[in-house]
Amino acid sequence: MIKVGIVGGTGYTGVELLRLLAQHPQADVTVITSRSEAGLRVDELYPNLRGHYPTLIFSVPDAQALAACDLVFFATPHGVAHTLAAELLEAGTKVIDLSADFRLEDADEWAQWYGQPHGAPQLLKEAVYGLPEVNREQIKHARLIAVAGCFPTAVQLGFLPLLEAGLADTSRLIADCKTGVSGAGRGASVGSLFSETGDNLKAYAVKGHRHLPEIRQGLRHAAGAEVGLTFVPHLAPMIRGIHATLYATVTDHSVDLQALFERRYANEPFVDVMPAGSHPETRSVRGANVCRIAVHRPQGGDLVVVLAVIDNLVKGASGQAVQNLNILFGMDECLGLTHAGLLP
Amino acid sequence: MIKVGIVGGTGYTGVELLRLLAQHPQADVTVITSRSEAGLRVDELYPNLRGHYPTLIFSVPDAQALAACDLVFFATPHGVAHTLAAELLEAGTKVIDLSADFRLEDADEWAQWYGQPHGAPQLLKEAVYGLPEVNREQIKHARLIAVAGCFPTAVQLGFLPLLEAGLADTSRLIADCKTGVSGAGRGASVGSLFSETGDNLKAYAVKGHRHLPEIRQGLRHAAGAEVGLTFVPHLAPMIRGIHATLYATVTDHSVDLQALFERRYANEPFVDVMPAGSHPETRSVRGANVCRIAVHRPQGGDLVVVLAVIDNLVKGASGQAVQNLNILFGMDECLGLTHAGLLP
Amino acid sequence: MIKVGIVGGTGYTGVELLRLLAQHPQADVTVITSRSEAGLRVDELYPNLRGHYPTLIFSVPDAQALAACDLVFFATPHGVAHTLAAELLEAGTKVIDLSADFRLEDADEWAQWYGQPHGAPQLLKEAVYGLPEVNREQIKHARLIAVAGCFPTAVQLGFLPLLEAGLADTSRLIADCKTGVSGAGRGASVGSLFSETGDNLKAYAVKGHRHLPEIRQGLRHAAGAEVGLTFVPHLAPMIRGIHATLYATVTDHSVDLQALFERRYANEPFVDVMPAGSHPETRSVRGANVCRIAVHRPQGGDLVVVLAVIDNLVKGASGQAVQNLNILFGMDECLGLTHAGLLP
Amino acid sequence: MIKVGIVGGTGYTGVELLRLLAQHPQADVTVITSRSEAGLRVDELYPNLRGHYPTLIFSVPDAQALAACDLVFFATPHGVAHTLAAELLEAGTKVIDLSADFRLEDADEWAQWYGQPHGAPQLLKEAVYGLPEVNREQIKHARLIAVAGCFPTAVQLGFLPLLEAGLADTSRLIADCKTGVSGAGRGASVGSLFSETGDNLKAYAVKGHRHLPEIRQGLRHAAGAEVGLTFVPHLAPMIRGIHATLYATVTDHSVDLQALFERRYANEPFVDVMPAGSHPETRSVRGANVCRIAVHRPQGGDLVVVLAVIDNLVKGASGQAVQNLNILFGMDECLGLTHAGLLP
Repeated sequence: MIKVGIVGGTGYTGVELLRLLAQHPQADVTVITSRSEAGLRVDELYPNLRGHYPTLIFSVPDAQALAACDLVFFATPHGVAHTLAAELLEAGTKVIDLSADFRLEDADEWAQWYGQPHGAPQLLKEAVYGLPEVNREQIKHARLIAVAGCFPTAVQLGFLPLLEAGLADTSRLIADCKTGVSGAGRGASVGSLFSETGDNLKAYAVKGHRHLPEIRQGLRHAAGAEVGLTFVPHLAPMIRGIHATLYATVTDHSVDLQALFERRYANEPFVDVMPAGSHPETRSVRGANVCRIAVHRPQGGDLVVVLAVIDNLVKGASGQAVQNLNILFGMDECLGLTHAGLLP
Repeated sequence: MIKVGIVGGTGYTGVELLRLLAQHPQADVTVITSRSEAGLRVDELYPNLRGHYPTLIFSVPDAQALAACDLVFFATPHGVAHTLAAELLEAGTKVIDLSADFRLEDADEWAQWYGQPHGAPQLLKEAVYGLPEVNREQIKHARLIAVAGCFPTAVQLGFLPLLEAGLADTSRLIADCKTGVSGAGRGASVGSLFSETGDNLKAYAVKGHRHLPEIRQGLRHAAGAEVGLTFVPHLAPMIRGIHATLYATVTDHSVDLQALFERRYANEPFVDVMPAGSHPETRSVRGANVCRIAVHRPQGGDLVVVLAVIDNLVKGASGQAVQNLNILFGMDECLGLTHAGLLP
Repeated sequence: MIKVGIVGGTGYTGVELLRLLAQHPQADVTVITSRSEAGLRVDELYPNLRGHYPTLIFSVPDAQALAACDLVFFATPHGVAHTLAAELLEAGTKVIDLSADFRLEDADEWAQWYGQPHGAPQLLKEAVYGLPEVNREQIKHARLIAVAGCFPTAVQLGFLPLLEAGLADTSRLIADCKTGVSGAGRGASVGSLFSETGDNLKAYAVKGHRHLPEIRQGLRHAAGAEVGLTFVPHLAPMIRGIHATLYATVTDHSVDLQALFERRYANEPFVDVMPAGSHPETRSVRGANVCRIAVHRPQGGDLVVVLAVIDNLVKGASGQAVQNLNILFGMDECLGLTHAGLLP
Repeated sequence: MIKVGIVGGTGYTGVELLRLLAQHPQADVTVITSRSEAGLRVDELYPNLRGHYPTLIFSVPDAQALAACDLVFFATPHGVAHTLAAELLEAGTKVIDLSADFRLEDADEWAQWYGQPHGAPQLLKEAVYGLPEVNREQIKHARLIAVAGCFPTAVQLGFLPLLEAGLADTSRLIADCKTGVSGAGRGASVGSLFSETGDNLKAYAVKGHRHLPEIRQGLRHAAGAEVGLTFVPHLAPMIRGIHATLYATVTDHSVDLQALFERRYANEPFVDVMPAGSHPETRSVRGANVCRIAVHRPQGGDLVVVLAVIDNLVKGASGQAVQNLNILFGMDECLGLTHAGLLP
């Protein structure tokens, strides 16, 4: 049984980790921290967990208690893992960070986008980007994993087959993404109120979103060259779900794109290439650790449209974190992650 | 392994049975019927099931194929089970009916509310009302189980402790219920359109809803006497969930209602009496086979307010059906039903 | 042209006042205050108003500027009007308060429910409760009007015909109410987030809601005696709308309730008694200053069910405030309030 | 007073016409037809209209009654206006068609996309495409107006300034559009159910949507040349609203795009170019006849992103139809269309 700690368990990725780990046969959550809710039972904050964690209580973060875990998840705002990760790693505890703290390879780029200096640049070398479909081998041997972000997961999984095959004009990639409101977290903010986001749709951060450098970095690795990417996120009136609509110009008309995508993900348990002509729906992955993808070439032109959907809290965060855990500890990658999406 | 058949698998209770049974270690769906979708793979209709039933295909209803199952679920509109159940029972196949066909003990009352003659009155005697918290023993030995309806489950579980203890004025019970739209099924109807039900709330069928006689029958059994019940259902703009707000006048002020409710459900795995002062939320049971209950006595008066929530498709239908299956076949009652609700 | 000031214009009742007054031929908003947004153009905060108030800018509250108005609306949290109203009244400016500051006649009761001393008890005597269907004559001659609250408007309008006619058992009234999330205001709070309230329904404040004493006071006046009221509010996943489901026992079976309700509201421009058997929908009054009511006697028993719907921001707040304005200044009561609800 | 008839008044564009015309000082709806609802009062179907059309009753379509009108709106499925328009025009009645029957200039193209022969090709020559921002002069003198479609309105208004100025690479235009569910109409269909579309987002018709040729035709006129357009519509869980996210490569970096857009629409009462850096929200135009536009050039590259929002039922259908009516009859273009959007 793997002893698991969670730092910052009051947000949505925290409760989602608890929901998923409640079904995991080999992981046991022994510590969960929250400064604001210390002393509270987790199921008092999250009544859906009643009966599943009858004795688990939020505690003030304590390095020693966390170091006694085999693995610690960080489900925290950016900057927190910077200050705590090194100490845990030294104590021999593995770290899976769901925040953005170790996703960018370049500390300066991180500082620029997050408006503060990088707090642990010495760890960047060994941090493994936790997108199993790309880095499975490195994940197996990692100490510190930076789970891929929600938009970045959907966009990268959608573009990868094209880029790895050298089929796309990489100077002109477009990712038009739509996310549910839970992506903004559980913090009290006017912009996430029901009355502000309900029955409404809008783009945001067109000028530049923090996920842009993360996506660009991943696509650059896949393409083996710099990429030109326009990324426009939109907020849609739903709780969970990301729908990435990706546009790329293909340079070779003769390729069978459907076969290309199917081949690329043939052995991936959590990437589902749908039949030609499909339109994946976000609800089909609600609560499930799956990325569903369809590839189109409308009117037979040279513009390819890839549709990719994930649940931002599962394959886009906590589910992917558990997937990383499974790989890291040499277990069946699907442990605790096999349930179907909730539809309707 | 129990061989399971499902008649009428294209509706929401059908797909929900498939979702739940995909996690069930002792049940195997071997037949699923649908006249309209015969020939279609189930995951073509329900993409959330992709990967879970790679070979399961809707077939035209065939008595012989169904009779080869150990158990057949009916997830059909009313009237269908009437015509098929007898034949299956004779063949030794157990039947769990999710429709209303065998819920009312009185064939005439059924005929009156459903506007057609009862099609199998000879089976009413042996049909067991599938509310495990009331009829667990009879369910164990049943051949034909009529799973309790969605509103009836929430209302009965909420009122039972009061009625069984003889504490309520049974002449003046009120059930003000709110349901999500999935309760109306997957049939194409203007009244269930997003644009008709979204951002909207209304009462309906105040004159008389088909669940009224079913609830009244259950409450009568609990109270040991006729009851006067006013039942007002409301349609709320959510997909899943029932919230029953129940009003009863208590005749004895000295009783500790919280203790009464906790005692009544102490050994029930799927009824969760929340701490005093709680307000259960429908989302806390989203996708989970749980009824959460809180009991209040506002301003210390003699009017008791019971709040009971379920997921209409799980504890109000398919989850309860699987719970019945587990009891019927002598298995752990919780098999396949232990996952937490999806929140947020 | 009536010069209008608005104190606290950044909340939902503020923007709704602006939306309605933009169509009002006799009112001109000259001052709007907000400490937090001082200096901002109103249409920068509320883009729906672009083109309607090209020069209106939030300003720091200034008693002199407000006193230069003929009328000042308070769209503020409770307590604010207490401190400012007296000064304005002395300057000859009329005050219409949308907050709860002057709704309760008893300062001690106010203090008990709002957890602070009443800040202007000397004004309570002259404050007129702004429910035109009850107090039209007093409104005409008022200086200080306390606009009826949202739940109180729906519940009172629904119960009034029964109580005024002495037809209901007043010891046992029940108001089961459902509200949209905008009723909680525009403040940043976790409880009002889309991800917390979406696809969810729950009761709240069953122990005691601040609108309880206000409703009780109004019903007491209508009945001419103390009333026993149980009030259970629920939060539903919609932006606007209140649906009040009211239960009362009638003491005289022979009365034609439909006729009673139609007669009571025959001359009321903003109360619409629907045909017998109707189920009013909240969306039918979305954006409109209307209360729609239907009255039922299910199964012909002695329990009457009244269904009443309003838009909490219009007939439950800003629309009613404009209606009060129209009456107060001797204008056509319907000025600026004649548009139909937005459906779908 | 202009005598107005409406053919096919039971759908959403029908009720929206009625809502808007109820506020119109110069138009009077005298006939409204519906085969299925003949004999029903319009406010029985649409309770939001109670009090506004107390005597208006759906009638069976009758050419003579319609010909007695000055103007007839068609709010019908495609094909209906084909059969009726000619007769009305001959009788001297003007026709404003909200369907797609006369939008495409080429009858063969129409036949290809709608799967049936064009029913009135002889009228195509004189039919004026009812997008006032492009065809105001022709509209003034038209007999037959084909109101621009919902997606086409948002996409064309967003692209026009770029294309008319010859600034965009017209071979590679992308329109990623998101629509609310009311765009699918009020017909009973599984795909528009609340439980199918709620909390969900998906692309559809990527292969080819019927609005594609209409948009392409409009853009071709603006550009003065054939255009290459990829159009991907998405269904979002909201009732009203279209958000078009448009991508184009600009060929001249020195142009001030903000100024270009502001200049193009300076005199347009219903197109609102927002300040640089803005993100228009669909709710800001809910119920209002406005298209709000913002133009971005992310990271200063050569890819321009235009964001355009409309209410699909207003500026995308019925509001635009009334705007056409106002122009056609030489009235103030804004009559009956000046109300602000409903927010929240």
